[in-house]
Amino acid sequence: MKTAIIGASGYSGEELVRLLSRHPDVELSAVTSRSLAGKRVGDQMPALRHLVGDLEFTASDPGELAQSDIDLFFLALPHGVASEFADPLFQAAKSVIDLSADFRLGSASLYQASYGQPHPAPHLLEAAPYVIPELTGNNWQQATLIACPGCYPTSIQIPLVPLLKAGLIEHQGIIINSYSGVSGAGRKVDENFIYCERNESMKAYGLPTHRHVSEIEDQLGQAAFADCIVQFSPHLAPMSRGIATTMVVKAKATLQEIYTCWEKAYADKPFVSVLKSGTFPDTKHVTGTNRCDLSAVEDSRTRNLIITSAIDNLLKGASGQAVQIMNLKYGFEETAGLT
Amino acid sequence: MKTAIIGASGYSGEELVRLLSRHPDVELSAVTSRSLAGKRVGDQMPALRHLVGDLEFTASDPGELAQSDIDLFFLALPHGVASEFADPLFQAAKSVIDLSADFRLGSASLYQASYGQPHPAPHLLEAAPYVIPELTGNNWQQATLIACPGCYPTSIQIPLVPLLKAGLIEHQGIIINSYSGVSGAGRKVDENFIYCERNESMKAYGLPTHRHVSEIEDQLGQAAFADCIVQFSPHLAPMSRGIATTMVVKAKATLQEIYTCWEKAYADKPFVSVLKSGTFPDTKHVTGTNRCDLSAVEDSRTRNLIITSAIDNLLKGASGQAVQIMNLKYGFEETAGLT
Amino acid sequence: MKTAIIGASGYSGEELVRLLSRHPDVELSAVTSRSLAGKRVGDQMPALRHLVGDLEFTASDPGELAQSDIDLFFLALPHGVASEFADPLFQAAKSVIDLSADFRLGSASLYQASYGQPHPAPHLLEAAPYVIPELTGNNWQQATLIACPGCYPTSIQIPLVPLLKAGLIEHQGIIINSYSGVSGAGRKVDENFIYCERNESMKAYGLPTHRHVSEIEDQLGQAAFADCIVQFSPHLAPMSRGIATTMVVKAKATLQEIYTCWEKAYADKPFVSVLKSGTFPDTKHVTGTNRCDLSAVEDSRTRNLIITSAIDNLLKGASGQAVQIMNLKYGFEETAGLT
Amino acid sequence: MKTAIIGASGYSGEELVRLLSRHPDVELSAVTSRSLAGKRVGDQMPALRHLVGDLEFTASDPGELAQSDIDLFFLALPHGVASEFADPLFQAAKSVIDLSADFRLGSASLYQASYGQPHPAPHLLEAAPYVIPELTGNNWQQATLIACPGCYPTSIQIPLVPLLKAGLIEHQGIIINSYSGVSGAGRKVDENFIYCERNESMKAYGLPTHRHVSEIEDQLGQAAFADCIVQFSPHLAPMSRGIATTMVVKAKATLQEIYTCWEKAYADKPFVSVLKSGTFPDTKHVTGTNRCDLSAVEDSRTRNLIITSAIDNLLKGASGQAVQIMNLKYGFEETAGLT
Repeated sequence: MKTAIIGASGYSGEELVRLLSRHPDVELSAVTSRSLAGKRVGDQMPALRHLVGDLEFTASDPGELAQSDIDLFFLALPHGVASEFADPLFQAAKSVIDLSADFRLGSASLYQASYGQPHPAPHLLEAAPYVIPELTGNNWQQATLIACPGCYPTSIQIPLVPLLKAGLIEHQGIIINSYSGVSGAGRKVDENFIYCERNESMKAYGLPTHRHVSEIEDQLGQAAFADCIVQFSPHLAPMSRGIATTMVVKAKATLQEIYTCWEKAYADKPFVSVLKSGTFPDTKHVTGTNRCDLSAVEDSRTRNLIITSAIDNLLKGASGQAVQIMNLKYGFEETAGLT
Repeated sequence: MKTAIIGASGYSGEELVRLLSRHPDVELSAVTSRSLAGKRVGDQMPALRHLVGDLEFTASDPGELAQSDIDLFFLALPHGVASEFADPLFQAAKSVIDLSADFRLGSASLYQASYGQPHPAPHLLEAAPYVIPELTGNNWQQATLIACPGCYPTSIQIPLVPLLKAGLIEHQGIIINSYSGVSGAGRKVDENFIYCERNESMKAYGLPTHRHVSEIEDQLGQAAFADCIVQFSPHLAPMSRGIATTMVVKAKATLQEIYTCWEKAYADKPFVSVLKSGTFPDTKHVTGTNRCDLSAVEDSRTRNLIITSAIDNLLKGASGQAVQIMNLKYGFEETAGLT
Repeated sequence: MKTAIIGASGYSGEELVRLLSRHPDVELSAVTSRSLAGKRVGDQMPALRHLVGDLEFTASDPGELAQSDIDLFFLALPHGVASEFADPLFQAAKSVIDLSADFRLGSASLYQASYGQPHPAPHLLEAAPYVIPELTGNNWQQATLIACPGCYPTSIQIPLVPLLKAGLIEHQGIIINSYSGVSGAGRKVDENFIYCERNESMKAYGLPTHRHVSEIEDQLGQAAFADCIVQFSPHLAPMSRGIATTMVVKAKATLQEIYTCWEKAYADKPFVSVLKSGTFPDTKHVTGTNRCDLSAVEDSRTRNLIITSAIDNLLKGASGQAVQIMNLKYGFEETAGLT
Repeated sequence: MKTAIIGASGYSGEELVRLLSRHPDVELSAVTSRSLAGKRVGDQMPALRHLVGDLEFTASDPGELAQSDIDLFFLALPHGVASEFADPLFQAAKSVIDLSADFRLGSASLYQASYGQPHPAPHLLEAAPYVIPELTGNNWQQATLIACPGCYPTSIQIPLVPLLKAGLIEHQGIIINSYSGVSGAGRKVDENFIYCERNESMKAYGLPTHRHVSEIEDQLGQAAFADCIVQFSPHLAPMSRGIATTMVVKAKATLQEIYTCWEKAYADKPFVSVLKSGTFPDTKHVTGTNRCDLSAVEDSRTRNLIITSAIDNLLKGASGQAVQIMNLKYGFEETAGLT
């Protein structure tokens, strides 16, 4: 099976190159980038020198790609731009896994409200399921256009969705704090992201309504069958990779029932580790893996449940999840290329 | 005026050596440490070589210190141990600024509940005011035994106490997340704190009821004239110094009123910077200073106020605050030795 | 084929667990540790939770291991201790790849001089080849006891050995500076290695004759057919992993000839990348890989060649190289389990 | 006395603002920046909020500055640009301390060779002494235009110059390796300097002839009364600040004589610490200070002396040294504003 990565110049794109070039079941046939076309991948991504041989970046022409013999396209593009490729590829009956925000929100109006521009391809919204493999039902594998979720939302939904579905926690008053490594900002060349500005620095940003809030609330609301308004505060942490998330929720069940729910939901899921209460997920332990670690404690004084999770923002929060989606869609081993 | 640091081998002790050795109004006459007695300070703390000349650590004998000609003692000792010095020094009419937890809590029973041991000197509790100079009233300067608050509590109280006193926020349902640099654990030689375990690692710890919760709730409760139960989640961040804190509270007033309250409370306070809404405190900007930066945004959807602050845990969160207390107690310039 | 890791509690041991548990051709049957016996590997090495299932550490009894059905043993033990296992395992006709220093030096007297103690198993020295797969000739695959080289020496020999063998550089006057990530010290719990001491710190250590000098000089001397005395200065760099090495040597050939020699030596070697002159190896680009990147420039003013290299100290400098040795010894794909 | 900083937007400029705004003997009257004119210094440099009050950046007009009542100007400008200010200010009899490379080299031809452009103000070269206060003789205080040396050269000259002057080491064959924190590149917004590219990365750069080589060789040659060609290899280390330097030289004297020479040269110098042999300078110990730490060991096998040093690249390597020069020129305490 032939695959391509469109817009591969960023960190998510680089992870996709790594994962697909050593995947046992697929071939990485093309890696495109407008800015890097004609350059060798191994020169631009020296960490991958031993994996990519002579592979070169090619130009990104949606029409040509639609006519190629490539089966599956990963879009690692900014929102808005992704649709310029998703649309013609979809029309050409190609399969597309989109890592941008273009097909993550349930409606064009929500997209407009969150991104300040009309949705670039509203006619495709219906066709594109939002897939966290551990949480989404079974029909999605037939879809040819799939929205791969964002990093913050993944770290939040894996712990909360089963609990909301089972009615074990209140869907109101959820308070979320997340801490992201600097790669969460992508390979952005901006004074705010140079080494001396981020090293030894811990800070909140984007409060009170970060762009990902809509995606979080949309998904949690679907799980709870109710409108769900959360307080989400993202932070930048002085590290390259990883997201840790701490959530305070009102419990409607005992800690034991919470754990039973998780254990049932994730019993046979290779990429979710439910840690025993009192053990806390650590970004260091998930970096380089496609895992989500999670755990909970309860505070008997406040009746709050404090739930913590950790993922690698570039793997389970982006490229690893995209490959996991591919594995399941095509009937490969779920963990293929991901250990 | 002659000063001494008792138990100077840790990071707070080292900061005190730095601050007092270059302070314009006092002399650093003795630096004690049981483990380092007889060694040169400049060899043990090479960063201070140019400041300390031939100064040596001496043994820590409470009786001898009580009879010395030293006027003021800073106790940089573990809780429990601090009282072994505070008591005889107090009886000998010496002045003491204690950086431990021994005199931070309002009652011996609260101490027992938090630290799992009887209070070592309950008869002194009454005599020892808890002093954050910006928040504590005027009588404390007469006290000869003063409790210097902890790092997390300082980062929380400076933003919240004026608002609670003025009734501008609810005292119930306060959710606090804090992120501390690794020096918050002191110079602890433990596998958990070796470089490779903490580097590139972000994680919660000590949930749900970290030791500092009692101090936080005790102080916020006094400000609110009501019992105050908070949800406090501390985290370790991969950096040497600094604490950032993010607080979600229910507002009973407009953002403008919140700011007016802060501006009034901190108008002439050299170590508090109220940042404009939308600008977020960054540990990097306060490291090496005695400042607390703070700001707030409101979320019109949730009616929550999100308040963020940042301090240097070893300065405004420990040794800098102790020197500030000294400056005010003795009538020196408040900023003396602290810029 | 069944494999075991003896003394797996350190960072090299952890990397071996990672590599062997996902290796396509072998089974990881036992992981031993005196201090961790009876504990679950996944609890002690949370980063490997998804790979190790219920595997537990077992006690390390040389006699029992010698009688087990395990085929190949990796020794990740301190020098001196390794021989306590190597000897009985060797006598029992087991295969052993030793990551300690016990069999790296050519003679018992050199060992005594370097490590300050008599060699613990001098009768085995003859039987144990020192193997850098890219440099060592073909007979070594028959050996059942193999010495896997140290991290500094590997980063030095891969660039220099082909040039010395070909007589393209002087074997005298070689000046080497190396910079190691903190994991080079292992999982050592020592004040010198706690986060706040190493973060933001760059320093030399162990000058003028670090323990690894003997191994370096012994091996370079064999390549040069002459005594080779080097000036080797190791440094600690504030990072978790990686070794960068900068070598100044007197060239006896042109830069072009140097490159031709390397390209010939490493043409079909999957783990050596010869970078073009003017591009400098970066530890970041090799971390997580078994690669050695290297390049050279010449200074026409001094007639010196400046050669730089980079490896991951825990992979090509330890566990990755050990697995590469296993792959070649047993006829597996050289890169199996190493991409 | 009134001072100004011209071109204050970079990290050296920021350090100058910090140092001058709290200096006891001078006033910081103006801070200029073409790009930041009209903005508040406290907003652009939040770490200095408490020091700078309402101070604003002003435009940089050489003519206007020459006619102002400011006495002393610090130029924190790129080479080439500095002369555009140095020239009119010098003509107007103002005093200037230049932190750029414009007046560091002894001749316009050397400048042309190193910087690839004609010297912008060759007529001033004669008038501008190159001053490392510990090394430069006494007449320089009369000069009104002074060249403040670079960071690498300072870390090299302080250890080597006294030894070369005394003939205790060979002036030929000196091998220098230096490791710089990322702030050495200034506040440069470039993909190479974003956090994720530099974190966990150690690498050489700029080999074989970094720009600073001319300055180093020029100065060492003057000390040795002979042409001095060095092999200088700079490296980027994953830290914000600090330079560590390791030098291999041929000794012509015993280690004891080396130390005696240093102790004599630096006996009364507050900013040089000669560490005992076997103790190694650490950037962490000098960061935030104006100190240079240095030490040496000898290798009896090679007859080499290995000399190591450490400075803060932004203080003793730039702004701290500039203030030290001011202090001595104007008869202030040498350490004023620098502890």
